[in-house]
Amino acid sequence: MEKGRKGGDYRETAEQLNAAAAMTVRGVVEALMEKLDKEESRCMIHLGQGDPSAFPCFRTTPLAEDAMVDALRSAKFNCYSSSVGILPARRAIAEYLSSDLPEELSPDDVYVTVGCTQAIEIIISVIAARPGANILLPKPGYPMYEARAAFSKLEVRHFDLLPEKGWEVDLDAVEALADENTVAMVIVSPGNPCGNVFTHQHLKKVAETARKLGIFVIADEVYDHLVFGNKPFVPMAKFGSIVPIVDSIKSYINISSDVATFTQGAIPQILEKTNEDFFCNIINTLKRSAEICYSKIKEIPCMDCPQKPEGSMSVMVKLNLSLLQDISDDMDFCLKLAEEESVIVLPGFAVGLKNWLRITFAVEPASLGEGLNRIIDFCKRHAKQK
Amino acid sequence: MEKGRKGGDYRETAEQLNAAAAMTVRGVVEALMEKLDKEESRCMIHLGQGDPSAFPCFRTTPLAEDAMVDALRSAKFNCYSSSVGILPARRAIAEYLSSDLPEELSPDDVYVTVGCTQAIEIIISVIAARPGANILLPKPGYPMYEARAAFSKLEVRHFDLLPEKGWEVDLDAVEALADENTVAMVIVSPGNPCGNVFTHQHLKKVAETARKLGIFVIADEVYDHLVFGNKPFVPMAKFGSIVPIVDSIKSYINISSDVATFTQGAIPQILEKTNEDFFCNIINTLKRSAEICYSKIKEIPCMDCPQKPEGSMSVMVKLNLSLLQDISDDMDFCLKLAEEESVIVLPGFAVGLKNWLRITFAVEPASLGEGLNRIIDFCKRHAKQK
Repeated sequence: MEKGRKGGDYRETAEQLNAAAAMTVRGVVEALMEKLDKEESRCMIHLGQGDPSAFPCFRTTPLAEDAMVDALRSAKFNCYSSSVGILPARRAIAEYLSSDLPEELSPDDVYVTVGCTQAIEIIISVIAARPGANILLPKPGYPMYEARAAFSKLEVRHFDLLPEKGWEVDLDAVEALADENTVAMVIVSPGNPCGNVFTHQHLKKVAETARKLGIFVIADEVYDHLVFGNKPFVPMAKFGSIVPIVDSIKSYINISSDVATFTQGAIPQILEKTNEDFFCNIINTLKRSAEICYSKIKEIPCMDCPQKPEGSMSVMVKLNLSLLQDISDDMDFCLKLAEEESVIVLPGFAVGLKNWLRITFAVEPASLGEGLNRIIDFCKRHAKQK
Repeated sequence: MEKGRKGGDYRETAEQLNAAAAMTVRGVVEALMEKLDKEESRCMIHLGQGDPSAFPCFRTTPLAEDAMVDALRSAKFNCYSSSVGILPARRAIAEYLSSDLPEELSPDDVYVTVGCTQAIEIIISVIAARPGANILLPKPGYPMYEARAAFSKLEVRHFDLLPEKGWEVDLDAVEALADENTVAMVIVSPGNPCGNVFTHQHLKKVAETARKLGIFVIADEVYDHLVFGNKPFVPMAKFGSIVPIVDSIKSYINISSDVATFTQGAIPQILEKTNEDFFCNIINTLKRSAEICYSKIKEIPCMDCPQKPEGSMSVMVKLNLSLLQDISDDMDFCLKLAEEESVIVLPGFAVGLKNWLRITFAVEPASLGEGLNRIIDFCKRHAKQK
């Protein structure tokens, strides 16, 4: 490659892209990681990102590994995929999802993507292609939506999730925000970052509001059955019908990356063979972790957790800065916590709520307890003297 | 999801996206596949897309499968990747690539992507973020560049590859096309779709021209050592230095899909263990296929192949329509060929050359011979009566 003379011209581009990238959880976590004390003898404890794979208690089932190995060794899946995904994978996913729904999904309703990031990229790119469009996003939310919207120059309007109502959608705000250029609203269900589970009744109201406004509901259900409170998971598709933007999605997928074919080849076997026990064990461990997390946080005077987590992997906690002597805001809290205690927690501003924290509890219970004890010590040390 | 009242407003979006998608090889191939005669008893022969994985003679080495299985079973790679790729993978790739280069690459020079499509998406998105930018693309070329540029509203200017000069870059055209808004030029080396291999001397001239113009060279070397003529593969990096747009690339990668971590985990073992024999066998088979392809095409009066393929998986063939009685253009040729002979060949317009064909010879030799015999029959049947 040649060194261009025009490097300087990229400043604008770089700033725009950097701004989008800095919005991601990963961008903020990287900034915190740099603060870790390298001389620290204690292990770093990461309560900042939902990645439980490091812990044996959350390890995936050998049956899923077997399915991947079988697909790989069969050499039947070394070819290119079709852009929407291979038929056996789409058929298995449609059947799996249909078991929760009043109407049967067809394989043609399913698009296999390279994880959620690509799904978000596709839907945001398709919506942003319409001039003047805007999208309604929840606050707090999952910042990849904001990052992709910023990159695609799609206007974002935020509606609140209401902590005093168990993080339900502020539907009055949705109605007030929407106009003729509003294309869609996003809900994350079960909730990330709040750990809440929406009731059937509330989701029905969301659907009715969206129908009235003539907008789509983009239901991000990546944590679908990961619930451990009293409320069951209710898929949004219970209230919906097929959306009319399928052609644009297909077209965008045609110019986007495919999922490795052998990975898709493993999907039918994974869905067929993985048994309930595996999910029960994971969910029980998560439930235990959520309880440890909630009870430890209740011990901390400067923290308030309005809602015990009932699903997903994280919980939102409100900081009372007036009880701390030398902490200016949520980012300052997280930077000093990383430096002094080798504990990573996500500052709330990264998910839309300044001076809150997002704590991920999808961590092996002993590590989680240790991490929260360090947070307790940290808060004691920084407490305002009375 | 809710059915929106605004479905109609998507027409514009859909048209723009559909136009970008139709530009891809896959879009054109799908249109041809629809023409296949379902009553036909003979097997369909696909000379339209470079996907040799269906043939046992091109099957990947068991050593690569072993590496994937080892990475998967280790459970060391179930976590999220860093956005640029995991260090062991980037280190192994940097070492592998450095063996051809005067200077050692560092792992930080390497970004692991979800295949070439994502690499093209990233580079085009980054360039398009600069207002008014344009990019120089080869004609014929690989249409994913055009499709992603159309989606990103990046201006494209085409320079010719010259069939009479073994598909070398028309460097005078490059100089004439470039202006102060030109950011980069793309070369595909070894050539897709032409099957040519650039000489050291010519690549040096490309580098000198780019340096003079102050533009980057984006060298698409996906077929790197896949050469079987007299010329060795020469990596463009021999003539280059590090490009100054790295920060923007990193930022875009941060909001783009990651490569499955365990796939990356397999890379060091794949690069270390795969032996020369495997590549020699593949290249010898390809060489034989290329020879069959070239000699059969020479038998066909209405076809002219200006350059025997020396690399990659395909070759460009010029149609002489004046010798055919009822074929209006390259797409008409390919549609009728699909319908009458169950043979898929890519019309040249899809890669930028109207009334040429792109024939993929990365096909098991017996099937390739049979496919070309059917093309010979087809051309005889449609030949103009003298």
